[in-house]
Amino acid sequence: MGKKVKTAITPTREEDYSQWYQEVVKASDMSENSPVRGCMVIKPWGFAIWENIQRQMDAMFKETGVKNAYFPLFIPLSYLEKEAEHVDGFAKECAVVTHHKLEKGEDGRLVPAGELAEPLIVRPTSETIIGESMSRWTSSYRDLPILLNQWANVVRWEMRTRMFLRTSEFLWQEGHTAHATKDEAMERTLQMLEIYARFVEERLAMPVIKGRKSESERFPGADDTTCIEAMMQDKRALQAGTSHFLGQNFAKSSNIKFQNEAGQEDYAWTTSWGTSTRMIGGMIMVHSDDDGLVVPPRIAPAHVVILPIIKKGADNSGVLESAETLKVALRQQTYYGLPVEVEIDSRDIGGARGWEWVKKGIPVRVELGPRDIENNSVFMARRDTGEKKGLNRDEFINTIADILDDIQDTLFQRAHAFREANTVFIDEKDKFYDLYKNAKGYNNGAFVMAHWCGSGQCEEKIKQDLSVTIRCIPFDSPDEEGTCICCGAKSDRRVLFAKAY
Amino acid sequence: MGKKVKTAITPTREEDYSQWYQEVVKASDMSENSPVRGCMVIKPWGFAIWENIQRQMDAMFKETGVKNAYFPLFIPLSYLEKEAEHVDGFAKECAVVTHHKLEKGEDGRLVPAGELAEPLIVRPTSETIIGESMSRWTSSYRDLPILLNQWANVVRWEMRTRMFLRTSEFLWQEGHTAHATKDEAMERTLQMLEIYARFVEERLAMPVIKGRKSESERFPGADDTTCIEAMMQDKRALQAGTSHFLGQNFAKSSNIKFQNEAGQEDYAWTTSWGTSTRMIGGMIMVHSDDDGLVVPPRIAPAHVVILPIIKKGADNSGVLESAETLKVALRQQTYYGLPVEVEIDSRDIGGARGWEWVKKGIPVRVELGPRDIENNSVFMARRDTGEKKGLNRDEFINTIADILDDIQDTLFQRAHAFREANTVFIDEKDKFYDLYKNAKGYNNGAFVMAHWCGSGQCEEKIKQDLSVTIRCIPFDSPDEEGTCICCGAKSDRRVLFAKAY
Ligand SMILES: [Zn+2]
Ligand SMILES: [Zn+2]
Repeated sequence: MGKKVKTAITPTREEDYSQWYQEVVKASDMSENSPVRGCMVIKPWGFAIWENIQRQMDAMFKETGVKNAYFPLFIPLSYLEKEAEHVDGFAKECAVVTHHKLEKGEDGRLVPAGELAEPLIVRPTSETIIGESMSRWTSSYRDLPILLNQWANVVRWEMRTRMFLRTSEFLWQEGHTAHATKDEAMERTLQMLEIYARFVEERLAMPVIKGRKSESERFPGADDTTCIEAMMQDKRALQAGTSHFLGQNFAKSSNIKFQNEAGQEDYAWTTSWGTSTRMIGGMIMVHSDDDGLVVPPRIAPAHVVILPIIKKGADNSGVLESAETLKVALRQQTYYGLPVEVEIDSRDIGGARGWEWVKKGIPVRVELGPRDIENNSVFMARRDTGEKKGLNRDEFINTIADILDDIQDTLFQRAHAFREANTVFIDEKDKFYDLYKNAKGYNNGAFVMAHWCGSGQCEEKIKQDLSVTIRCIPFDSPDEEGTCICCGAKSDRRVLFAKAY
Repeated sequence: MGKKVKTAITPTREEDYSQWYQEVVKASDMSENSPVRGCMVIKPWGFAIWENIQRQMDAMFKETGVKNAYFPLFIPLSYLEKEAEHVDGFAKECAVVTHHKLEKGEDGRLVPAGELAEPLIVRPTSETIIGESMSRWTSSYRDLPILLNQWANVVRWEMRTRMFLRTSEFLWQEGHTAHATKDEAMERTLQMLEIYARFVEERLAMPVIKGRKSESERFPGADDTTCIEAMMQDKRALQAGTSHFLGQNFAKSSNIKFQNEAGQEDYAWTTSWGTSTRMIGGMIMVHSDDDGLVVPPRIAPAHVVILPIIKKGADNSGVLESAETLKVALRQQTYYGLPVEVEIDSRDIGGARGWEWVKKGIPVRVELGPRDIENNSVFMARRDTGEKKGLNRDEFINTIADILDDIQDTLFQRAHAFREANTVFIDEKDKFYDLYKNAKGYNNGAFVMAHWCGSGQCEEKIKQDLSVTIRCIPFDSPDEEGTCICCGAKSDRRVLFAKAY
């Protein structure tokens, strides 16, 4: 690295990772804090990323027969009372609606009026109300499977928030399915996890580790919680999606019964699975650098920005026209079935203009001046590698889809290499403790594959001592004899330890 | 009509229009009342219609440069206090969040806890919070125009609800734009109304009348409210979309200021425009009949249902296989750039199966039995006309897009003819009063084009006497001398009167 390089984002990742994150979000113009405590405004650049995520994931869901539906924003308080386990989970962080109108008070100010007989909760999840519907919709095996998904806003009151990673209101999707057999439900659980993994790896360019949670990290009421875990640049893990096999537990508490083919009454087997705007937080932390956001082409709101070189007082019409024709030519190229999306920024604001687009993370920037037009060339810069070069205009147009593919691939490979370089196998407790004891800020140790005896006590001790948790028991962790990293008892498999978001 | 025909929906439109509507919704499996007062569950068949509306409208918005964003669900109470006009409008019907957690009370039940210092309102619209953001984002003419749209859920507490037409929570889109000049804002107002009109006519097959509201019917704070009005089968009007020119009023109350090119500070000129799930209510009431829902092909969740003729105990594999290959062949046909969507319903439930699809309003039903397969034919039924006929299988496949186009066109033409047949020009007050005096149930008079002097008093008198309102001053109402239908004073234009939803 040598001498200190001036970066677009201050502080750098190394200087203050957490602050760097906030600055990247701000500088990218993706979102901002709203005047409403704990809620954010998602601005067009950030929301377009969410729309791309939503559109692509939704298509993958629908290919497997899932249908979307919409359930009410409000949940009656009594629904939460029925489900003791949930209350423990969500009771501390609910928005509670107690009144249904406002009236002018004595001092002329507005005061809540029309108190509700039963308070309503703004949904922290729609699980209970979807369960109630499923119980009404299911009477025969012919009604199964029910394969539902909902894209919606949910609220969980948060005291300390961070944009995209933890906000009081966030956007997510929650899938809920009910099946006649255990096998079918288990298969669906894994099928949806596989979709999440494919989506996150292929579209967000984030390599993930698939596995199941230990008992203590399981979703309340689940027989099995599967998840995908990704490594951020500070070497902490972020759970990018979960898929739960709920056995018959949820059907029993929601009374989802059906008559099977043999004419006997049985409880359905259910699953649930979810992802949220948190994925965007993960994407930011995996790819961005000290110059700001880096967006993978497959979910970028725009792929190319054309920056015509404007001269004050001069006749710029030729350059502006050439920019327009370049845009049209690029949009005729397709990238995964859709037009290559192009922005033209012809604001006359000097060098700040190019930097704004660097900080927004657009995959390709193109400068276009009178000399480029003469030479039928363009001067392009890649956001991922920083590479800048002039090339023939037609060649650029004809290869733009390949360039974008290469950027997508480079981002994935880079993140993958980073994770591999920071994943270690440890068998000695001291080494394990040493690694994590001083982990903080930009350097949170590593992903550690270590043996674990399976006891909740060992898991808890490590969590207490080091704030390190078992992220998952990876599906591809082979059978292997060893001894627990905590207590030394026999173990036959390594699990993934890390600090986590 | 002659003798009484058995219909799938009871009561018929004529017997009880309002109850007929509820039964159509229920029988179509589009939505149902939820256990949460005033809120509905939108089931997959209904939600897929909303998704099609959303996808198509969204593309039309984006073609004009509009970008989507997302603003918080909650609005601080103080924001509403600032806007006296809004408070009058919404104060009676807000969901008010007063607490942010639940705790176990003495009797073990849950009680609201953590009272908020300032209550939050669940957004009845995001206008105030979008205005606040725009004021922060706008400093120079270079920041304008701002062209935003939001798809979201909103809440207005309703005591008497009807699915899709009036529910406490509903889904909608609200567009908000800010401009440097009055002309540009006025142009945008009309551009968005034009998009609404095109969408509703071309996709929902509902003919509309474009016009502006009278002063008393204007949106609070608007200089001009434009709208599209459609006629339902009970001859009442339904407003299917509105677009407001807000002048500088909204910018002044939200402090949206900018420095213009001349270096002077000025307030922006703004617009807002919205449509909601109410459009689905309109679609139901325009096209459906006494056998249930009729969905226009361009927004139908599926275009064709294949009903293989299943014989108990027989080997049905040939028929089922043939249904699958027919589905594949149909899906290879495109209808407006997307595959023709096909369902196969092979449930062995007798005649109820076909009727279920009639009631869901799918445009085309196809029966497929062993003899059809032998003859390489299909037996199809159109939902719009009820026409049933056998035709060659290949011909059916090759013309399916044309058949769908014809259905779409038939629905529009039928609705248009109905409206024309029920639009009258009236110049005598007695005649006007007679028409509306006994209007109710299935027969709410007509659309009446009558002269109006422009006075709010005349408008109010007609409203009080007859529950009839000026729906709009149609853009295409020609200059014409006449006398006010109410007071006899001079008028130079006819306006549209009707009972309305
Ligand atoms: Zn152990
Ligand atoms: Zn008059």
